[in-house]
Amino acid sequence: MIEFADKSPAEIRSLIRRNELTRPTAGMAKGFTQANLAILKKELAFDFLLFCQRNPKPCPVLDVTEPGSPIPQLIAPGADIRTDIPKYRIYRHGELVEEVTDILNYWEDDMVAFLIGCSFTFEHPLMNNGIPVRHIEENCNVAMYKTNIPCIKAGRFEGPVVVSMRPIPEKDVVRAVQVTSRFPSVHGAPIHIGNPAHIGIKNINKPDFGDAVTIKDGEVPVFWACGVTPQAAAMQVKPELMITHAPGHMLITDVRDEQFGVL
Amino acid sequence: MIEFADKSPAEIRSLIRRNELTRPTAGMAKGFTQANLAILKKELAFDFLLFCQRNPKPCPVLDVTEPGSPIPQLIAPGADIRTDIPKYRIYRHGELVEEVTDILNYWEDDMVAFLIGCSFTFEHPLMNNGIPVRHIEENCNVAMYKTNIPCIKAGRFEGPVVVSMRPIPEKDVVRAVQVTSRFPSVHGAPIHIGNPAHIGIKNINKPDFGDAVTIKDGEVPVFWACGVTPQAAAMQVKPELMITHAPGHMLITDVRDEQFGVL
Repeated sequence: MIEFADKSPAEIRSLIRRNELTRPTAGMAKGFTQANLAILKKELAFDFLLFCQRNPKPCPVLDVTEPGSPIPQLIAPGADIRTDIPKYRIYRHGELVEEVTDILNYWEDDMVAFLIGCSFTFEHPLMNNGIPVRHIEENCNVAMYKTNIPCIKAGRFEGPVVVSMRPIPEKDVVRAVQVTSRFPSVHGAPIHIGNPAHIGIKNINKPDFGDAVTIKDGEVPVFWACGVTPQAAAMQVKPELMITHAPGHMLITDVRDEQFGVL
Repeated sequence: MIEFADKSPAEIRSLIRRNELTRPTAGMAKGFTQANLAILKKELAFDFLLFCQRNPKPCPVLDVTEPGSPIPQLIAPGADIRTDIPKYRIYRHGELVEEVTDILNYWEDDMVAFLIGCSFTFEHPLMNNGIPVRHIEENCNVAMYKTNIPCIKAGRFEGPVVVSMRPIPEKDVVRAVQVTSRFPSVHGAPIHIGNPAHIGIKNINKPDFGDAVTIKDGEVPVFWACGVTPQAAAMQVKPELMITHAPGHMLITDVRDEQFGVL
């Protein structure tokens, strides 16, 4: 994948658009933010945007397309949301029915695409601070868990906050809070440090999504709000049609990670 | 007004609800955030929320009520948006038609109230840092100007960014940027420092809204995005019915200013 680390977002999106690239996007266009995708019909869009507005830590909205427009004007004005993601998932009434490499045949005039921040954006800053990121070391997906923390409801959308977990050496926990606090638009500071049971996680070795990772002696599990939260909430509504990216197959934006840093 | 500085938000809202208090709210319930109000019908709510999401510096959304519900659950769950603001303005097709002390007779089941952050929240932190706030010293309204900076359009909503200006001693400008950067949900860092002409302001002594203030020798005009922006954008759409607070007559929330501080 290293061959794509130094390519520009536009170059990679062009390869994806021509179906010459259909792999997960981790590591591609290093330094540029990648975004989660959720597409809903206009009739659900206000409630979903409100849900995100009320729950900004798990649902940091980076961009919302104009109804019917496939162009994410703010974060990738040269992109087409219907073709520039390597793999999509089509859900009907909350059930996964198909994985496809473009959604030209599914796109309708009343569709609204939500691009949502992803904690990948703060993982390079963590590593640049000498803080290990275990799932990158172990070359697997981040461990994600449903918690007993409810999101604030909006219209028909509700559900628990989903978190991602990274084991952090005790001596680095304060710095990890500081570094990730700088990135509120990609989940920001952790929402919990330490005992998984306190947020309703029964078995840290059995994540609800992604892969379990090693927690070494002297490391503390640290939990960040996760972008799976809004997708899970949307799924519970069982919308007639909903389209998301396939896990790990993200939109590569034109915005540099550091542009989301505050202070 | 000092008699209300130490009262709780709930106590003051109760006086307002009984029409025993109909004055501007500046200085009341010291340390608690005050919010701007804009009420629109549901049919315009998605586009307006999207406009705010795309323009977070001038339009920092603190809370949005569920359609038809007058309760701002996030920032003042004990408040009723129809009675707890000292003075309201009723606009029909973009024209001011009436000022009233409650809106019980105007409220409809499809109305959505937007509570938007206000730069008053960061004025105490500025003063606590020894930085003068001129319009408080001169006991007048802050000076506000239309700029030549366009907001990002959303649906029918568009318009220029409106800014508030505070003259800051040259030696304090860096600190003023730092202090206000901590408060992104109430406009955050300035958007311009120095020459007014560079953002399209022709005469600094003739503000478009509010009052002109003295700029002393050695002071630099510093410009922050202003909550008048979304009201002005909404007015241009000439909605059938729109309700706002009367200038200076704000919703006093249960959230402390410092709770909006990051880091």
